[in-house]
Amino acid sequence: MVSYWRQYPDIEVKLQAVREFIKQRVQISNTDIESAIIAMNAAGGKYLRPAFFFMFTGFTEHKQYSDDERIAVAASLEILHMATLIHDDIIDDSPLRRGQVSIQSHYGKDVAVYTGDFLFTVFFELVIETMQGSPYLAVNAQAMKRILLGELDQMYLRFNQEQTVDNYLQSCTGKTAELFRLACEEGAYFGGADTATVERAGRIGINIGLAFQILDDILDYTAQEGEVQKPVLEDLATGVYTLPLLAAYEGHAQDFKPYLDKGLNISHEDIRTVARMVRDFHGVDKARELAQSFTQRALDDIEQLPHTPARKNLMKLTRQLLHRTR
Amino acid sequence: MVSYWRQYPDIEVKLQAVREFIKQRVQISNTDIESAIIAMNAAGGKYLRPAFFFMFTGFTEHKQYSDDERIAVAASLEILHMATLIHDDIIDDSPLRRGQVSIQSHYGKDVAVYTGDFLFTVFFELVIETMQGSPYLAVNAQAMKRILLGELDQMYLRFNQEQTVDNYLQSCTGKTAELFRLACEEGAYFGGADTATVERAGRIGINIGLAFQILDDILDYTAQEGEVQKPVLEDLATGVYTLPLLAAYEGHAQDFKPYLDKGLNISHEDIRTVARMVRDFHGVDKARELAQSFTQRALDDIEQLPHTPARKNLMKLTRQLLHRTR
Repeated sequence: MVSYWRQYPDIEVKLQAVREFIKQRVQISNTDIESAIIAMNAAGGKYLRPAFFFMFTGFTEHKQYSDDERIAVAASLEILHMATLIHDDIIDDSPLRRGQVSIQSHYGKDVAVYTGDFLFTVFFELVIETMQGSPYLAVNAQAMKRILLGELDQMYLRFNQEQTVDNYLQSCTGKTAELFRLACEEGAYFGGADTATVERAGRIGINIGLAFQILDDILDYTAQEGEVQKPVLEDLATGVYTLPLLAAYEGHAQDFKPYLDKGLNISHEDIRTVARMVRDFHGVDKARELAQSFTQRALDDIEQLPHTPARKNLMKLTRQLLHRTR
Repeated sequence: MVSYWRQYPDIEVKLQAVREFIKQRVQISNTDIESAIIAMNAAGGKYLRPAFFFMFTGFTEHKQYSDDERIAVAASLEILHMATLIHDDIIDDSPLRRGQVSIQSHYGKDVAVYTGDFLFTVFFELVIETMQGSPYLAVNAQAMKRILLGELDQMYLRFNQEQTVDNYLQSCTGKTAELFRLACEEGAYFGGADTATVERAGRIGINIGLAFQILDDILDYTAQEGEVQKPVLEDLATGVYTLPLLAAYEGHAQDFKPYLDKGLNISHEDIRTVARMVRDFHGVDKARELAQSFTQRALDDIEQLPHTPARKNLMKLTRQLLHRTR
């Protein structure tokens, strides 16, 4: 996490505070669960959602909410994210998470169920503590539901060769973009920005989230084993068809069918063949184009934000995050 | 559910409304999950928690909260209960729930994880809708956490022959009594009762919850297969040592050890032997005594409540529920 934010020293300091805050808040007498959460928190993703939150607090000097309150809100975003990741890994039977053994694989599905539930309760507490009387209490409940519905969509589309790019985008809008939307919107709101900026922040969040998810899914088709911190093409093996495959599939259904029909019995060799076809039929190129168009929409909206140093940083971060080529 | 409440026609009408309300609120585009929840809701437990809630709303005529709001609060209690049951069945690998195939066993653990999560989000929404500005928002978050910690205690004590009656009571205070406490306390509060009554209601709920759980665990050692809607002695087979066993165990550790040491490999024959020893060493009798003492504490407190028809009904229900002999 540290190196990623070196260019944004203000953000880096705040993210460290969020990390400490989370460490304090997840204390629980059950040592397995506490250590599992603390390890996950330390291995940390990039804390992207709290980072976008803080970026968006920078658009006014107005201070209705204290720094401590903002840290708590930023932490609630990351905690909700962690809770959903842990439960997703149960569904995906995922052996790895953030380059470490996932909780479900290390401690078993039972512990993973309760660990996710525990984080949901911490999220719930934090939201109540910080948002009483604000509309964001209800917004958070709704966001949590939308994220879950996105996950459910994905689960139910598994191995379905009839699914479309639209199905994929709808699922991503829930499972990924919703939390980016919430992070950006809450940043603007708890930073004291005006209504138009809050609304724009939400839209930016959605577009960043969609681009981010697509790029992540592209990586699965272009990265070599060992380069990324999760097994390459695990999604394909478990029947999750992401954008590169869906884009390549259009017009080439017959080429893919014999492989996809194998369902869970698809071999490593088959997976490599499918991945090659995805690239040959321009699935990766098309996915990249779509990611590019969401990125551009986000950048155009960022252009319209008040001219502040925060805008400059936000522009830089968005470019850095979404212009990764592989 | 219907027959159980025939003697309490006012309560019965309200519980029907809660059931309808829940049916409306769990609508979700995913048909598997919706039908799983609706089936569970229809097979229904007794709706004990909403029933106690409504019993406690009857102590004043004061109406700060509308009937609709009260129905929503009562529903939130049952929804939280359902969510925790579904996740517990994952941990327990439970084949049955309410005499029906459990969600995890019918649809798989994956669906069960998300179904529980979905109900948590509905619970969260309901609580926010109905309790903004009241202290019960935070009380609910805390209750959800305590319930979970009780479940965790139970999970981590599995197969542990060192555990004590106190460990058992602590776990039950969380996993069962906390929700009864919440139901009774919220009933008094949303019914407009004074602070002393609200506090007393909470205490009554805890004692009812503990007695209820103990009686449920006794049933496991006294019922015959087919009599109750869950497999007899499933707890014992999965390493959950409840009060009858723990009470019998004191002073007879060496008798139980050879059987309990088998852990998950304990046979049906062994289980029957252990159950007989539990009865012979007066584990059931001792557990019954303890249940009786919690019941008496609840009844003594109920005596102190304002003299109203509600008190009479509450007394009757508590006796009916907790004086079951097997």
